Amino acid sequence: MSDRKRLPGSSGRDVHFERVVILAEGSFDVEGAKTAVGIIRYGRCRTVAVIDSQHAGQMAKDVIGVGEGIPIVASLQEALVYEPQTLAIGIAPRGGLLPAEWRQVIVNALECGLDVISGLHAFLQDDPEIAFVAERHGCVIADVRRPPEGLPVAEGLCRSVPEQTVLTVGTDCCVGKMSVSLELTLGAKRRGMAADFVATGQTGILIWGRGISVDACVADFIAGAAERIVLEACRDADWVFVEGQGSLYHPGYSGVTMGLIHGTSPKQMILCHQVSRPEIRGYGIAIPPLNEVVAYHETVCAPLFPTKVTAIALNTYDLAAAEAERAIREAEELTGLPADDCIRNGPDKLLDAVISAAG
Amino acid sequence: MSDRKRLPGSSGRDVHFERVVILAEGSFDVEGAKTAVGIIRYGRCRTVAVIDSQHAGQMAKDVIGVGEGIPIVASLQEALVYEPQTLAIGIAPRGGLLPAEWRQVIVNALECGLDVISGLHAFLQDDPEIAFVAERHGCVIADVRRPPEGLPVAEGLCRSVPEQTVLTVGTDCCVGKMSVSLELTLGAKRRGMAADFVATGQTGILIWGRGISVDACVADFIAGAAERIVLEACRDADWVFVEGQGSLYHPGYSGVTMGLIHGTSPKQMILCHQVSRPEIRGYGIAIPPLNEVVAYHETVCAPLFPTKVTAIALNTYDLAAAEAERAIREAEELTGLPADDCIRNGPDKLLDAVISAAG
Repeated sequence: MSDRKRLPGSSGRDVHFERVVILAEGSFDVEGAKTAVGIIRYGRCRTVAVIDSQHAGQMAKDVIGVGEGIPIVASLQEALVYEPQTLAIGIAPRGGLLPAEWRQVIVNALECGLDVISGLHAFLQDDPEIAFVAERHGCVIADVRRPPEGLPVAEGLCRSVPEQTVLTVGTDCCVGKMSVSLELTLGAKRRGMAADFVATGQTGILIWGRGISVDACVADFIAGAAERIVLEACRDADWVFVEGQGSLYHPGYSGVTMGLIHGTSPKQMILCHQVSRPEIRGYGIAIPPLNEVVAYHETVCAPLFPTKVTAIALNTYDLAAAEAERAIREAEELTGLPADDCIRNGPDKLLDAVISAAG
Repeated sequence: MSDRKRLPGSSGRDVHFERVVILAEGSFDVEGAKTAVGIIRYGRCRTVAVIDSQHAGQMAKDVIGVGEGIPIVASLQEALVYEPQTLAIGIAPRGGLLPAEWRQVIVNALECGLDVISGLHAFLQDDPEIAFVAERHGCVIADVRRPPEGLPVAEGLCRSVPEQTVLTVGTDCCVGKMSVSLELTLGAKRRGMAADFVATGQTGILIWGRGISVDACVADFIAGAAERIVLEACRDADWVFVEGQGSLYHPGYSGVTMGLIHGTSPKQMILCHQVSRPEIRGYGIAIPPLNEVVAYHETVCAPLFPTKVTAIALNTYDLAAAEAERAIREAEELTGLPADDCIRNGPDKLLDAVISAAG
């Protein structure tokens, strides 16, 4: 049974996790399907196919730049030839609801004997029809966003851990906080450092196999959830890279960000920013200059614990190489901090900054 | 059926709301039972008795300074002589769980035909035994902290409402934010102003009969819940006093506070502070001087919307009159803002400050 894995939100049952087909109908691109992209880029499972009729016939690598050899197909039916064991929901829509047109695909997948992994706010296990079909066909559903029972109110314990806790923060949602935390973790491990990644969102949990989606916790327990998983990581790791969520500037999600910051009480913060994004997406709120963003984050934390932004992680995926290099130089000049795009250039420069700041 | 009322979290059924007995066993005092004190001070229902064996034989007014004619009794059995229709849970314990020793009292109350109103995180309707007994005896349970279905992600709409939205913020939990917002609402109504109170916590909902407990919402929807209830209040009121929650300085609850601030996007903030409290209770974190607290709140809001702290509401319940007067003067000198204790002195001075700041 080595092809099964215990995931959060699976009611204590193991999920097939070797051969996964990703549902990303109508939205398989870098911006629209961040869960799909995260699984393909970092997942420990093998993605055998992606379902998106708009891109059917292409390969994943052609569309998102990663995913060598992964075909995009038009339907679940077409995906079955690649022998998936599990269907993973590959989008994270605003509000976390299940798009109505996907319901039938999920039911069909269960009828074909596939397990289903979902990171939606709307838990599939709580949907009577879907739960019934899963039970009938002996399939497991993992609602990885479902928080565990019995979360505590944060006690402020992370303020005094000796480990180097490093939290990614961002100028907006979807700018690359999870990817940067993962790149730093993997880079640190390659150097033989005792490093761990702390997943705080559904895609991170899918990739790392554990964690708590802090945005799905009852609000009183955001910081308590973060505190719990950071303390767990600190047991075996000296370098703990915590996936950030949302943005202190985001009118919808700032509460999650604030709770995560206080629950983590990080020794260092890495500021993530997408260079081509001048405003909070969908809100028309201007993102301040990066030096002001750095100062703002340090000011917000100061009354509770001293911390610094120690590096800038830029997302330049949509820029030409020369533009990216210029953006990195400009960010360094503006903030006086090391900056880099660690997807484009690898995590070593940012990792050196983290190690240097740890002293 | 005029003695019944529709409350949030009652599954669409009406709760008896004329004659209430409050359960506050072992904790009926100003600091320990803020829900009980809130109901007695501001509730629209009649409190017929309080259950607390430690204070049995006294009157509520002797213990908490309000509640003329309300006896404190040792048990539910003794309370029945006062013919209650409803048992209200009168504490808001950290973490919101049901104290084990209260379970039997709730079951007994239901068996006696009483409805039950609870503001705990642990929903009584989800407890199979309690739900069974309620059903069997035809009683209604109102879990007023249960958030409604289908909450939105905040859209930032409150930033542009023309109404004067006024949010109380605090240096800690339990410093009087709800009471100040209620006093200002009631004071404004006495002056004939079109004012409304927006309840954001369980006690406020119990008092006002509507609202959403934002600390019980799924974290992604804190600001969205706040936005919804503020916009609703703006339909009929020009002066909207929003009950604050937690504190930006609180390691456990700051996420709730941040979400509420951004969801409300208040035109003004009233800073609430208990003079005798130098630290965040239970955390040993020093509360900064009030002028720094004012600046901090304005700085946190600045990137999203311009707002000011326009008055200081001091809680001096445990000080002698002369000490209270001195504390008020000192707060005014330190911050340059009008300050007062509106429980001690009435809301007029703070209300004048709010009206003056509205321009």
